[in-house]
Amino acid sequence: MAIRVQDILNQLIEPVGQLDVTVDTLKSGDPSMEVKGIATTFMATHHVIQKAIELGVNLLITHEGTFYHHHDQIVLLSNDPVYQAKQKLIEESGIAIFRFHDYWHRYRPDGIMVGLIQALDWAPFVTENRPAASLLTIPPMTVKELALHVTNKLGISFVRVAGDQSMTCTRIGLLAGYRGGGGMAIPLFQEDVDVIIAGEGPEWETPEYVRDAVHQGRKKAFIALGHAESEEPGMKYLAEMMGALFPDLPVHFISEAQVFRSI
Amino acid sequence: MAIRVQDILNQLIEPVGQLDVTVDTLKSGDPSMEVKGIATTFMATHHVIQKAIELGVNLLITHEGTFYHHHDQIVLLSNDPVYQAKQKLIEESGIAIFRFHDYWHRYRPDGIMVGLIQALDWAPFVTENRPAASLLTIPPMTVKELALHVTNKLGISFVRVAGDQSMTCTRIGLLAGYRGGGGMAIPLFQEDVDVIIAGEGPEWETPEYVRDAVHQGRKKAFIALGHAESEEPGMKYLAEMMGALFPDLPVHFISEAQVFRSI
Repeated sequence: MAIRVQDILNQLIEPVGQLDVTVDTLKSGDPSMEVKGIATTFMATHHVIQKAIELGVNLLITHEGTFYHHHDQIVLLSNDPVYQAKQKLIEESGIAIFRFHDYWHRYRPDGIMVGLIQALDWAPFVTENRPAASLLTIPPMTVKELALHVTNKLGISFVRVAGDQSMTCTRIGLLAGYRGGGGMAIPLFQEDVDVIIAGEGPEWETPEYVRDAVHQGRKKAFIALGHAESEEPGMKYLAEMMGALFPDLPVHFISEAQVFRSI
Repeated sequence: MAIRVQDILNQLIEPVGQLDVTVDTLKSGDPSMEVKGIATTFMATHHVIQKAIELGVNLLITHEGTFYHHHDQIVLLSNDPVYQAKQKLIEESGIAIFRFHDYWHRYRPDGIMVGLIQALDWAPFVTENRPAASLLTIPPMTVKELALHVTNKLGISFVRVAGDQSMTCTRIGLLAGYRGGGGMAIPLFQEDVDVIIAGEGPEWETPEYVRDAVHQGRKKAFIALGHAESEEPGMKYLAEMMGALFPDLPVHFISEAQVFRSI
């Protein structure tokens, strides 16, 4: 029996229930189209969409928006040549693009976090999963060793580190995506976390708190993985989960290179 | 005749006129206190405040908030030991801390931008100063050379670069602080800018636009300086300006180390 785009979306949404307000909508394609192949990705870049088409995929599930903004402000881009070329590729291919952001974060535990913890090889060290953060107690290592562990496991060329690199740490607060801001991260330090590892956050919030803490003689550090770097593993994990849910369909995960280089 | 804190604030505000809504308020200290010495800084870190006190400064002018948030959400921090130690230092010293953010950005040209352009040695290359961005045409160089020029001139250990490092560029869009987001930066690319250099911005907006543009064969790049890295020179420039305005008062600029290291 044919599996249609809408069938897949229904199954993905089911564990959470329909949200009244969400960015998770079908951005392109026909919900009644028969699905020939599925791919998941952090963000549907031009390159990712082309790769998906080459793989015979007609349903691409992306965590972030396609047009460089949480609410896809396409009105600003209507005359932009980069937007137009990407939009043409999407329209001509007929590919369905579904954003799976809010729902995936509302799985319990958060699907993005499950993938990140798995990628870091830290599943045995989780002490608590909260809605927006996980707490872990890892074997003691220095912050520098921790940074190298993380870059190695995630296969990325750099992370940004604030605080004392030589201090030994064991209690980790882990936050994926744009959850590294002071409002979310600083309260974790108050619970005796040594190091916060986050995707992205405003630079003069948590990192500057850490600077002050270290100056006052406290052992604290902050590691910014990068937004995509912190969430891509969760979309890889989604592909694994969907492969099990839909064994008759090809399911791929499409990775992208790190968008930034450190120079 | 004694110069009081309020006299200094009045003079700083005067070119713009009083704003109805602004974060630029006196955060600590007595407006009628006689000013013995002034210091400017990007952010009043614990270390910066101590240094100011050591220098005999009793009016510290900071660009960003003291407590890790644009609106200084102290309610979240009231039991936090880092906050408490810093607040104690401020109260016991009696130092006046004035935030000079909105006004300085509303000077024409933006005072922060003047300092940044001066630090980059690019004053002769400015073609247009807009309220939130400056456009420049610099001597042609590769993006990699540009990144090295910038790190060298600003005295910083790294910047983050998206796009093609080997491409030659000449048209630069420069945005200080948190103005690197897609809404501000992408329209500049539509005006034929080759490279946008910004302080900070959401990672999957402008950098991902650049990734798509390069994939489509267009020559574009994005350099993230860091928020503090992009605005500190403007606070140094403020110290120079205030030294000329108040020749009888000692005026210092207090720098901080880069908050992040790239590992």
